[in-house]
Amino acid sequence: MISNPHPTHPRASEYAARIKLMIFDVDGVLTDGLVHLGERGELFKSFHILDGHGIKLLAQAGVVSAIITGRTSTMVAQRAVELGVTHLYQGVHNKLDAFAQLLTQTGLTAQACGHMGDDWPDMGLMMTVGFAACPAQAHSEVRSRSHYVAQARGGQGAVREVCDLILQAQGHYEKLLTQALGK
Amino acid sequence: MISNPHPTHPRASEYAARIKLMIFDVDGVLTDGLVHLGERGELFKSFHILDGHGIKLLAQAGVVSAIITGRTSTMVAQRAVELGVTHLYQGVHNKLDAFAQLLTQTGLTAQACGHMGDDWPDMGLMMTVGFAACPAQAHSEVRSRSHYVAQARGGQGAVREVCDLILQAQGHYEKLLTQALGK
Amino acid sequence: MISNPHPTHPRASEYAARIKLMIFDVDGVLTDGLVHLGERGELFKSFHILDGHGIKLLAQAGVVSAIITGRTSTMVAQRAVELGVTHLYQGVHNKLDAFAQLLTQTGLTAQACGHMGDDWPDMGLMMTVGFAACPAQAHSEVRSRSHYVAQARGGQGAVREVCDLILQAQGHYEKLLTQALGK
Amino acid sequence: MISNPHPTHPRASEYAARIKLMIFDVDGVLTDGLVHLGERGELFKSFHILDGHGIKLLAQAGVVSAIITGRTSTMVAQRAVELGVTHLYQGVHNKLDAFAQLLTQTGLTAQACGHMGDDWPDMGLMMTVGFAACPAQAHSEVRSRSHYVAQARGGQGAVREVCDLILQAQGHYEKLLTQALGK
Repeated sequence: MISNPHPTHPRASEYAARIKLMIFDVDGVLTDGLVHLGERGELFKSFHILDGHGIKLLAQAGVVSAIITGRTSTMVAQRAVELGVTHLYQGVHNKLDAFAQLLTQTGLTAQACGHMGDDWPDMGLMMTVGFAACPAQAHSEVRSRSHYVAQARGGQGAVREVCDLILQAQGHYEKLLTQALGK
Repeated sequence: MISNPHPTHPRASEYAARIKLMIFDVDGVLTDGLVHLGERGELFKSFHILDGHGIKLLAQAGVVSAIITGRTSTMVAQRAVELGVTHLYQGVHNKLDAFAQLLTQTGLTAQACGHMGDDWPDMGLMMTVGFAACPAQAHSEVRSRSHYVAQARGGQGAVREVCDLILQAQGHYEKLLTQALGK
Repeated sequence: MISNPHPTHPRASEYAARIKLMIFDVDGVLTDGLVHLGERGELFKSFHILDGHGIKLLAQAGVVSAIITGRTSTMVAQRAVELGVTHLYQGVHNKLDAFAQLLTQTGLTAQACGHMGDDWPDMGLMMTVGFAACPAQAHSEVRSRSHYVAQARGGQGAVREVCDLILQAQGHYEKLLTQALGK
Repeated sequence: MISNPHPTHPRASEYAARIKLMIFDVDGVLTDGLVHLGERGELFKSFHILDGHGIKLLAQAGVVSAIITGRTSTMVAQRAVELGVTHLYQGVHNKLDAFAQLLTQTGLTAQACGHMGDDWPDMGLMMTVGFAACPAQAHSEVRSRSHYVAQARGGQGAVREVCDLILQAQGHYEKLLTQALGK
C-alpha cells in the first residue's frame, strides 16, 4: 500500500506551525500496526525509541501531546506515562467525541490541534484539526487527506519525523539541537 | 521470493464482485508468517490492525469472512472473536474438506466464495473457489494461480487490500468511506 | 549488508542434485537472526511457516534435514520436533565436529550433504559439504563462498527457497506440486 | 528517514584504525529501536546474532567494547554478559559523564575511543570520541555527524558492519577470517 505516496501539501509547514497540541493514534502510528498475540492470552505492541524522544522534544518546545485510540491496553497507558503524555483517551468509539472533550479541557480551538492517524477511523478527526499527518504505510484514503505523509512507516520513526516537522515549523528545532549537541 | 509478482488477472474485479464469503488463511496472510517461540513453550503470532478493520468493513457490506488454517492456536480463536469471524476452522489437514462443510453450513456455491492463501496447502482451495488472492510474499506457485496478488505482504495490510478490492468490486466502498468521513 | 549479492554458482543446481541430507543453521537462517530478550529472562526466536513446509516437502522427497547450531534453546528443540528433524545438534562449538558425528551416524559422505548458514562459524562446514547455501542477509564472506544465495532473508522464506531448489534439482518438485494441487 | 544517507567520511577507516575501545548505544543500534511492551508489564528488546559475533571478534582483536544507554533493563545486562561486555552503563542521563568515568577506568584518551549511536542523546559523545558511527536508520542529524553510516539498520547487522570496518582498519580482519575458515 506504500506505492504512490501522496505529495506533501504545499502548506504543511504553515499548518504545522500553528498547532499547540498534537494527537497521535496508537496502532500503526506509535506502533508498526501489529498486535502480537500469545497462546495464553498475552498481548504485546511495539513502540519505537526515536518516536519517544520526539514527543519529549515537543514537550520541551511547549507543544502538548495527546493519544486517542479505539482500543484499550495497559501498555499504551504505560508508554503514555513514560513519554509524559497526560491526555490519554483509550477505548474511544468516535474520535470526534473524545476530541470535543479534549478541546473543552484545554480551551484550544480545533485549528490549534494536529492529528496523526493511519486508518479510516482517524479520518473524521484528521479533517477537523488544523494539521493532519500520517505514516508511510497509512491507508491510501488517509494519505490522500493528509497534509504530511511521513517517509517512515509507523513504528519506524514516523512520529519522530512529524515531531521534527512541527519543531522546525515553529522555530524550535535549531535551539533544541544546539542543546543536544552541548551534552 | 517477491520478485516477478504475477500481474493482476484482468477479471479479478469481476471475480471479486460475485463472492458472498471470503476465506482467509492465518500464517502468512493474517500474520507475517512468523511464529514467535519462547523458551518456556510460549507461542505468539502477529496480526495487523489494518486487516482487522477490513474484515469489519466486509461484514458491514454483507460479505461473510471465514478462517481455515492447518494449525491450531488459542490466539487465532481470540482474534476471530475480536473480528466477528464465526466460521473458524483450525487444525485442518485438507482445506477442501473444511470447505465442503462450510458450503453445507452456508448453502453457498463454491463460485460465491473467495480464498486468500500463501502456500501450497492453500492451492487446492484457491483453484476451487470463485476468487483467489494472495499476499505479496506468497509462494511463487500460489502467486501464479491467484486472480489478485496484493502489493502488501501478509501482516502488513495484504488482507485489507483484498477487502478494499472486494468492497470496490461490489460497489460498497464509496458508501462506507462516506460514513467513515462523517465520524 | 545486502548490496552486491553474490551471483548463483553456475553449478548450484548440479550440486543441489547430489545431496541426501541438508543441514540448517538456526539464527539468521531458520530465523530472522533476532533474539527477543525479556526483562524477566524470557527468550524468543521467530520462525517462518513457509520454511517449515519446505522441510516437510524435502522429507517427502527423501532428503533428510539436520540442524546444527552454536546456541542451545528449548524452542529450537520444539521446532525440530514439529518439522520432523531428528538430527539436532545444539550448543555446538565447532560445527565440523558435529558434522563428523552426523556422517558416522548416517553413513553419508560429505559430498552428499549440504549446509545453509549465515555467518563465519558456518564457513568451515559450508566449504566441506557438497552444496553450500545462505540467506540474502548473510555475512558477505559467507555469500561469496555459497553456491546459492537466496533472494529471501532468513526468517522470510530463505530456507523454503533452498528447499525448492533442491526439489527441482532432484526432479521431485513437479510431482509434489501436482499432489498439492490435488488437495 | 533513510533517504539521503550521509556519505562515508574519507578518513573513516583511518579514524577506525586508532580506537582501542568501542562504545555502543542499545536502542536502535544493538536493537531495531523497538520496545515490545506487554499488557502485563512485560518488556522485550530484539538483538541480532550477527552483531554479537562482531563484538566477540573485536575482543579477539584486542578492541574493548562498552555499552552506554539512557534506559535500564535486565536484558541489556544479560546480553552484555553473553557478549563479554564488562563496561556497561545503564540509566545514563548524560552520556559524557559516563564517558568521563570510562576514560578514568581505562586510562584511554577520547581519541582512542569510538561511539555508535542513533539519536540526539548520542551526539555529544559522538563528537567527542575519535570515531563516530551510526546505523542506516539513525536520525538525520546523527548521520550527518558520523564518520561512517552503516548500510544495515540497527538490529539487522549494523553493529557487525562497524566491527568489520574496525577489524579491517586495524589489520586484524584477514587473520580472524583465516581462523574461521579453518574451523
